[in-house]
Amino acid sequence: MSLSEMVQIQIQPVGKRVAVTKDMRLIEAARAAGIDLASACGGEGSCGQCQIVILQGEVTPPTPDEEFVLDNLERAGGLRLACSTKALSDLTIQIPRSSLITGQRLQIESNLREISVYPFAHAYQLELQPANLSDVRSNLTRITDALCQNYDLCDAFASLEVIRTLSPILRQNEWRISLFVRQHEIVEAGPDGSRPFGFAVDLGTTKIATYLLDLESGKVLSSKGATNPQIGYSEDVISRLNHVHRTQEGGRVLAEKVRQTLNELLGEMVNAAGISRVQVVDACIVGNTAMIHLLLRLPIRQLATAPYVAAASAGLDVRASDLDLEMAPGAYVYIPPTIGGFVGADHIAMVLACDLDQSDKITLGVDMGTNTEISIRKSGLPFLTAASCASGPAFEGAHISDGMRAASGAIEKVRINGDHIELITIDDEPPVGLCGSGIIDLIAELHNSGLINDRGRFHHQGQNVRTNSKGAEPSLVSPEKSGTGREIIITQEDVNEIQLAKGAIHAGLCILMELTGTAPEEVEEVIIAGAFGSFLNVKNAVVMGLFPELPNAHYRQVGNAAAIGAQWILKSSAARQRAEQIAKHIHYSELTTYPKFSRQFALAMLFPPVPPSQITNHFTQEK
Amino acid sequence: MSLSEMVQIQIQPVGKRVAVTKDMRLIEAARAAGIDLASACGGEGSCGQCQIVILQGEVTPPTPDEEFVLDNLERAGGLRLACSTKALSDLTIQIPRSSLITGQRLQIESNLREISVYPFAHAYQLELQPANLSDVRSNLTRITDALCQNYDLCDAFASLEVIRTLSPILRQNEWRISLFVRQHEIVEAGPDGSRPFGFAVDLGTTKIATYLLDLESGKVLSSKGATNPQIGYSEDVISRLNHVHRTQEGGRVLAEKVRQTLNELLGEMVNAAGISRVQVVDACIVGNTAMIHLLLRLPIRQLATAPYVAAASAGLDVRASDLDLEMAPGAYVYIPPTIGGFVGADHIAMVLACDLDQSDKITLGVDMGTNTEISIRKSGLPFLTAASCASGPAFEGAHISDGMRAASGAIEKVRINGDHIELITIDDEPPVGLCGSGIIDLIAELHNSGLINDRGRFHHQGQNVRTNSKGAEPSLVSPEKSGTGREIIITQEDVNEIQLAKGAIHAGLCILMELTGTAPEEVEEVIIAGAFGSFLNVKNAVVMGLFPELPNAHYRQVGNAAAIGAQWILKSSAARQRAEQIAKHIHYSELTTYPKFSRQFALAMLFPPVPPSQITNHFTQEK
Repeated sequence: MSLSEMVQIQIQPVGKRVAVTKDMRLIEAARAAGIDLASACGGEGSCGQCQIVILQGEVTPPTPDEEFVLDNLERAGGLRLACSTKALSDLTIQIPRSSLITGQRLQIESNLREISVYPFAHAYQLELQPANLSDVRSNLTRITDALCQNYDLCDAFASLEVIRTLSPILRQNEWRISLFVRQHEIVEAGPDGSRPFGFAVDLGTTKIATYLLDLESGKVLSSKGATNPQIGYSEDVISRLNHVHRTQEGGRVLAEKVRQTLNELLGEMVNAAGISRVQVVDACIVGNTAMIHLLLRLPIRQLATAPYVAAASAGLDVRASDLDLEMAPGAYVYIPPTIGGFVGADHIAMVLACDLDQSDKITLGVDMGTNTEISIRKSGLPFLTAASCASGPAFEGAHISDGMRAASGAIEKVRINGDHIELITIDDEPPVGLCGSGIIDLIAELHNSGLINDRGRFHHQGQNVRTNSKGAEPSLVSPEKSGTGREIIITQEDVNEIQLAKGAIHAGLCILMELTGTAPEEVEEVIIAGAFGSFLNVKNAVVMGLFPELPNAHYRQVGNAAAIGAQWILKSSAARQRAEQIAKHIHYSELTTYPKFSRQFALAMLFPPVPPSQITNHFTQEK
Repeated sequence: MSLSEMVQIQIQPVGKRVAVTKDMRLIEAARAAGIDLASACGGEGSCGQCQIVILQGEVTPPTPDEEFVLDNLERAGGLRLACSTKALSDLTIQIPRSSLITGQRLQIESNLREISVYPFAHAYQLELQPANLSDVRSNLTRITDALCQNYDLCDAFASLEVIRTLSPILRQNEWRISLFVRQHEIVEAGPDGSRPFGFAVDLGTTKIATYLLDLESGKVLSSKGATNPQIGYSEDVISRLNHVHRTQEGGRVLAEKVRQTLNELLGEMVNAAGISRVQVVDACIVGNTAMIHLLLRLPIRQLATAPYVAAASAGLDVRASDLDLEMAPGAYVYIPPTIGGFVGADHIAMVLACDLDQSDKITLGVDMGTNTEISIRKSGLPFLTAASCASGPAFEGAHISDGMRAASGAIEKVRINGDHIELITIDDEPPVGLCGSGIIDLIAELHNSGLINDRGRFHHQGQNVRTNSKGAEPSLVSPEKSGTGREIIITQEDVNEIQLAKGAIHAGLCILMELTGTAPEEVEEVIIAGAFGSFLNVKNAVVMGLFPELPNAHYRQVGNAAAIGAQWILKSSAARQRAEQIAKHIHYSELTTYPKFSRQFALAMLFPPVPPSQITNHFTQEK
């Protein structure tokens, strides 16, 4: 039986399927399915973190490492290390939650297209003649001469940091090396045959998502997420900027915090992939304008007050070392252009990944987050108009009594069926709180059932709806049934918070349509981006008035498109150029200066009327 | 009487003359004559350092500042502050040594031509429209748009360090600013009307010479010299490289030492000129290959052993901040290309300043220093051939018993006249030691008088020549007459040291002529550069065999031409381009691999025969 024979791996409990060759270790098979297993030792068989259960099928026998790391009972139960096991037949495996990298939630497969890989940073293999007394060219000149002769890449140069590494590397590798060149700049030299890797980052106000890419194949080798550590200083953008403005060291501290987190995430990913940091030769960081200003330590005073002017909006090539990122010595971080004070590089990346700039339909693009950026694509120039809505962090679970991020035990789906409430949680764990999609479902269902009126007030006569000093508080889960031992509730204040959030987005979309003379029925497509946007029930979002009524629109949920855009920029020089072009031609609209803004916003906070037949006016806790 | 009327200022004791307008302060008049006066307060009248004596002529009455700073007796003696005094008629003034900037020795006027000023870094004045809600372009974009519209300088960009400064500077100066742009990169923004300044450095193994230039006028505003602090670790190049190689922290320490000295010298010069460091927007540092490697912390292992390969030889633009130099936030330091392991950027700068690359004569260029670089210019390609001679620091006074650098009290001229020795010292101070030009005079005269033979041995029978365990030691100055109270002597070891030095240069020139097929009588010109080269008595240098017999050569002494070349590169983009071209087309010859090298060197250490009639065989101490 040939080792290169293909087998099917069925992965539980996530229900993924992947076809791999038999010579692939199961840790890599899981990665190919988009599932990163914990692996502190980098797949060496020693840390015992990447445990899986073989439910069905034949696998290679346990290795001595496994016999050492796993005890008899564990092995009898079918437990194996994914890094030390290969399939001998089709398999069904189960991945315990403990083996998943902490905090990771499997992302819905994005229905964004693939792009061809032609990265900005390339590898070149060189075999040089050693120096001798009749050829005393400097080491750098010897290299640049060879690049010109062998690859027609003339006028190459290098920064001091890189030049410092060349002489020892040439000698250590007997004059056969790999060179990584970004346009004409040598950013790293390594042993012959080294591959280049890239670091893509979506730096959100609340969450940070990072990816390690193989720049030759374009594949994501590893991904990691973390909470933006700046959140400890203030949750929303404006108060974070004010913190910097008010405190002497605020800017330095906030920048250090986020740079340190990025460095740690990159460190975990390179370890997981079994490569070295210096092989990471290129990076792209997208984020909203404020996050980029804080990361780069740009002045923020003028950004925090009207007219909200960025210090710089052009795409920037910043040396990784200037951001304290430990990568290849000459590596750069590319920050795509920003559009306005509140429409940042992340929106450019989202527009790019959704091909919004090339769409032939009238399309609304909505990138939901703590700040929600929206764009409308219509033919003619400006071909795209963008704006920003201060939606706040409610949809990410913040400012909601029992809100939480999308993690195990979060209520992600809610249905009120007649007189009782049905809840679905992530990983089917006992409920511990509400994440964004659950909140939208809940509000839509509460409103649909007539338990909250158009203005967002609870009808106090509802069963399980208690009135206390803080207002009405419907109880969703009793302490006995919750995963925390505490009751899970939704309060009047929570509903008001959601109304502010959905009102901001609703009003923004309406004004953007008005400004571009677009009637609701003309809109052909709505692209919903943002990690949370993947999980949201679009029907409920329309019911509760997050989106206006767009009778002819097709809704597309694309997940974290900004992160995909950042990956595209690393994978493709053409994508990078397109990002620059999008920024040049997109028109920015400041919604708050629009005369009807306040009225539109107030109206958008109301809930759309519901047919009276649907109203039940009461519900019970989940059975 | 018009203030713009011209007056003549005669400056003692240096014998300089300068014509200035009456409205010019005498501190500036002195500067126009190339004499920098000490002035810690920047010419504000408060530090009292720039004292001068009015010997003849009428000046403006004492200011209140002067009355405060100078006491009655001082004023009665004609003492005034040069910063607070203007001429009312032609004047003769005397500058006390204490008013001269420490360590400075007036440089002989270089007979190098002037070049037209067209610096690499330019200033642009901008008056911008403030941002408002209908024009929220970022501050950087507002600036780059204006540069494009007003000056046709499009595609300008800026580094993070500079972007950080733009927003506050725009606001502090009400949107009217000066921008300093280096090619397309904004390196500094300042208040409207700011001028750009440049920092030129000749980084020698033994001495560092620095200059502050006004990049608009091209004038040198201030100059400072210092001993290279690395000399504390080892005097010659190779042992300094070995120190770095042998010690863990050697490279870091040596780089820090020299960077700190450069920073201090720049600080003193900007203070003297009354400007701020951030106005220094461009720099050029020239030096030999090893000094540049140590400054930049490039690897030196391969430079210290055959085949003596540089890590990099291309011209480099290094960020000033990467060298810890406090200048404009975006300033770069340009390091011209190097030619070989021992022919560095300083030789390129010297070739440039002497127009050696454009000469239509057969010319030898000799840049004397601890290492002496030589070039021959002949028509045809390679149009220049360069080589290096390990001449050592003897001509700079090192390794010589009573050697010293060219400072006050140094014996700079020697004549043996019949039976006594005549000495001339710098500043006519009592003699304290021998500087380079004095050493050459002395050896030539000793040899001419027959007191040392062709092989460099003393004839022991000479008067005042004592023999002790260390060899023969002629006494030049008795303890009573010396400025130190110690006898000044010359030893057999000193003579041998000089023989090694002059032999290296003599042999180098002979081999270079042989390699290029040049007969001695074909050489039309010899250009002698190096700070010491200005003061040397050429006739004596030929007599003692420093230069070979070149019957048709005209000798030109051009002073520190490498430093002038560094200044040219700052003043003129064309000069910078020419430096790059010189490096491309110059041919480097490694002399030590030349088969006849050892024999030539041994021969060159001998002194040329002297006609017997001249021999006196004895001398007495100076009367």
